Amino acid sequence: MSGSGAMGRLYGVGLGPGDPDLVTVKAVKAIAGAAVVAWFCKRGRRGHARTIADGWMKPGVTELPLVYPVTVEIPFEDSAYVDALSGFYAEAAETLAGHLAQGRDVALLCEGDPFFYGSYMHMHERLKNRFPITVCPGVTGMSGCWTAAVQPMTWGDDVLTVLPGTLPAPALAKRLADCDAAVIMKLGRNLPKVRAVLADAGLVDRAFYVERGTMADEVVMRLSEKTDDQAPYFSMILVPGRGRRP
Amino acid sequence: MSGSGAMGRLYGVGLGPGDPDLVTVKAVKAIAGAAVVAWFCKRGRRGHARTIADGWMKPGVTELPLVYPVTVEIPFEDSAYVDALSGFYAEAAETLAGHLAQGRDVALLCEGDPFFYGSYMHMHERLKNRFPITVCPGVTGMSGCWTAAVQPMTWGDDVLTVLPGTLPAPALAKRLADCDAAVIMKLGRNLPKVRAVLADAGLVDRAFYVERGTMADEVVMRLSEKTDDQAPYFSMILVPGRGRRP
Repeated sequence: MSGSGAMGRLYGVGLGPGDPDLVTVKAVKAIAGAAVVAWFCKRGRRGHARTIADGWMKPGVTELPLVYPVTVEIPFEDSAYVDALSGFYAEAAETLAGHLAQGRDVALLCEGDPFFYGSYMHMHERLKNRFPITVCPGVTGMSGCWTAAVQPMTWGDDVLTVLPGTLPAPALAKRLADCDAAVIMKLGRNLPKVRAVLADAGLVDRAFYVERGTMADEVVMRLSEKTDDQAPYFSMILVPGRGRRP
Repeated sequence: MSGSGAMGRLYGVGLGPGDPDLVTVKAVKAIAGAAVVAWFCKRGRRGHARTIADGWMKPGVTELPLVYPVTVEIPFEDSAYVDALSGFYAEAAETLAGHLAQGRDVALLCEGDPFFYGSYMHMHERLKNRFPITVCPGVTGMSGCWTAAVQPMTWGDDVLTVLPGTLPAPALAKRLADCDAAVIMKLGRNLPKVRAVLADAGLVDRAFYVERGTMADEVVMRLSEKTDDQAPYFSMILVPGRGRRP
């Protein structure tokens, strides 16, 4: 590499929860200023990130989808999955590095906030010591969901616990036993397990189920009114806090 | 009131963590479209919210500061404080209601995200059954702080625990004993207590201290490098997660 003057800058661009107007001004500028716009997506899908960015893309920009070789719902305990994903991330990082080394700024689009359960972090760790980086924080998916549900989430001294639904039932139960406010993310096929744990904790009547919060096709209902067990991976359950309020 | 057609709409406008470019496009539109822009502030201060919104204010808009009668650091256990605050919120809600009843849209500015420990929620509860409302979620202060610290916060199955520093030491200790990733907000004069609890939990070496994350005068350091106990109320401590990563 020939000195930092020649290098491009990597932008980790948080896009927020789905509504294109919930993108920040900083993100809009980063997308408009980049020579290359990249994003992760599943095979055969355009990717939510690319769709959210639609109105903010500059004509003529180089579009670079980074296509996952496996789906995110395969159990992480499967070592073949970890190997496949690790190899994919290494390859994706080198693809980005190729553009950055040529002096091209790259905006890597991320749903939600890049440093909050974001795939962006896998690129960040691999590139942070090699290229200049700017991270644009975004509105998290959970903020989008509690806004869609129109539920104030944390009051006064409330503790907020954010739990991946992928955790085993006993771990979820332990965390929910003394929760004030809780968010359970990554539902998907974990919904029946999560629902059972919430029932044991006496929390079903306080819980809301939200799919695609802030998107045009958002779904919001009380968990007690959800009669089936179908849930996309990025749906979530919210238990609003009930803390002190004057 | 003469029918909803004549009423104004209340906008709860999340402004994000401090950098004016971290305001969302939706918030910019809400501020530009409102006849009245209101915000909470302390006596004798302009208020961070108003400062963040500076570049987005429309000329000729009615500015409506809502000035707290007491500071937020008086112990909540003090019933005189609760009474003063409760009376203030009731009065502020009626001030907003006066404008809304006259058909004027009101944008109530909120630092961070309105439904996440936001003063906005006190107005929301008092006005939600009387006027149409739109809430614009914002980038939270904690997202701003972990971005300022350049720390990926939650990985894979990490649980995130968000704790108000106002909690008693035993409650903080219990929550931090089994934490993956943690955010401790509302530091202020709680910093020595919080630091002691983190030391007991063996977490000081993983912790970052952040003031005014994403603002021009932000302060970011490892907690182990912070030698004094001075901290603004809205500073926070971050303990990044160390979860699974391919």
